[in-house]
Amino acid sequence: MATYSTLSQPSKLLFRQLFEKESSTYTYLLADVLHPSKPAVLIDPVDKTVDRDLSLIQELGLKLVYAINTHVHADHVTGTGLIKSKVPDVKSIISRASGATADLYVEHGDKVSFGDLFLEVRATPGHTVGCVTYVTGDASDHLQPRMAFTGDALLIRGCGRTDFQGGSSEKLYKSVHSQIFTLPKDTLLYPAHDYRGFTVSTVGEELQYNSRLTKDEETFKNIMENLNLPYPKMIDMAVPANMVCGIQSKPT
Amino acid sequence: MATYSTLSQPSKLLFRQLFEKESSTYTYLLADVLHPSKPAVLIDPVDKTVDRDLSLIQELGLKLVYAINTHVHADHVTGTGLIKSKVPDVKSIISRASGATADLYVEHGDKVSFGDLFLEVRATPGHTVGCVTYVTGDASDHLQPRMAFTGDALLIRGCGRTDFQGGSSEKLYKSVHSQIFTLPKDTLLYPAHDYRGFTVSTVGEELQYNSRLTKDEETFKNIMENLNLPYPKMIDMAVPANMVCGIQSKPT
Ligand SMILES: [Fe+2]
Ligand SMILES: [Fe+2]
Repeated sequence: MATYSTLSQPSKLLFRQLFEKESSTYTYLLADVLHPSKPAVLIDPVDKTVDRDLSLIQELGLKLVYAINTHVHADHVTGTGLIKSKVPDVKSIISRASGATADLYVEHGDKVSFGDLFLEVRATPGHTVGCVTYVTGDASDHLQPRMAFTGDALLIRGCGRTDFQGGSSEKLYKSVHSQIFTLPKDTLLYPAHDYRGFTVSTVGEELQYNSRLTKDEETFKNIMENLNLPYPKMIDMAVPANMVCGIQSKPT
Repeated sequence: MATYSTLSQPSKLLFRQLFEKESSTYTYLLADVLHPSKPAVLIDPVDKTVDRDLSLIQELGLKLVYAINTHVHADHVTGTGLIKSKVPDVKSIISRASGATADLYVEHGDKVSFGDLFLEVRATPGHTVGCVTYVTGDASDHLQPRMAFTGDALLIRGCGRTDFQGGSSEKLYKSVHSQIFTLPKDTLLYPAHDYRGFTVSTVGEELQYNSRLTKDEETFKNIMENLNLPYPKMIDMAVPANMVCGIQSKPT
């Protein structure tokens, strides 16, 4: 069993997990605090909590560089557009495969750098066609264990649905097994959502206890095809908005 | 500015933050995973999430030793009684000053040991008469920075109310300034609640940005006397239950 290790000496990486209660979304703040400008990135910000996030960033003396999405969300509106309207220097990032509009597009194998740290981009389609997982670097000056921000590709003991937005249970199974479960067992997994109050898991834990992805591929596909989930409440509003960073008509 | 540092090599301390959405309560799981029996403690478990917590503990291969409360909660029923009924070896812990019934009582200066790790008890009355803060040890084999589990004595950018349960704004001010703000600035602060989606703060941050406790004592007392908060919804049910570990008639 990989264990969740913990907090060490003051280090480069400042990390904060933030929660939006209505959609049970986690937003993640990462910054290189040993770099003179303290550059920071936000992963999966939510429109409703942008002011909270920006005031925390200001209090911590960070400079927000990138507002990043793991995918085009269907359950909430991304905060990236609103952030850009409030802090014009910030660039939005999403995968090219998502088909969404952003300032910068990433692909499998790319690195998103902030200061001397970076996030590695791993394509993990299946929940949506353009889902990516961002993984902290494994260079010797990065912190161990690594952290993976999995969006809805892998949730704690579960995974995102595969019946909308170019979803595919077959692709999701391959993505998680080839791109996430191959990370070291102590890699910390930070999903875009949790509905039961969990905040983190590890690769080792999910390899052993994920209720869906521990199954063989056929069983997994069967599970995903028989979830009988209701039509996503927010999808008709959220997806068009999130295709353009959450703001349909630009404020300027 | 003290910064939130982050994750190091596999270490003794396994740490998990868990959230109960209805009362916005954080429960904390800590374990010494290098000790053969992997002894664990739960701080501020909630009755509604006991099954979640116990199944996580089981999956992680931990042995729950203590179910600990920071104080007699007024907004939710503690999970300690239910945990004891399901795992009879677990001992409940609360401060002697709380007046509540538990298996073990702690006082200022005591240590709560699990494996080779321990929590130091600091009396921080003011929100209730028996509030304590549990602080991870500062011995060389403990992890740095330290972590303080503050209950409702200190919340992120705020604090608990002082108008019930033997509360006193004067005492709370003294408690936080003498027992929490004197910890190293990089000490991680983990409160019993957060209502805005924050998960952690630091002593340095609260020294600079706490909206109440950065004020002088007179201003603080004034703020606390003029909050005009509604009567606590759950208090008449929760407090009597929490005085006896959450279970009024013992199951055995
Ligand atoms: Fe999604
Ligand atoms: Fe309380």
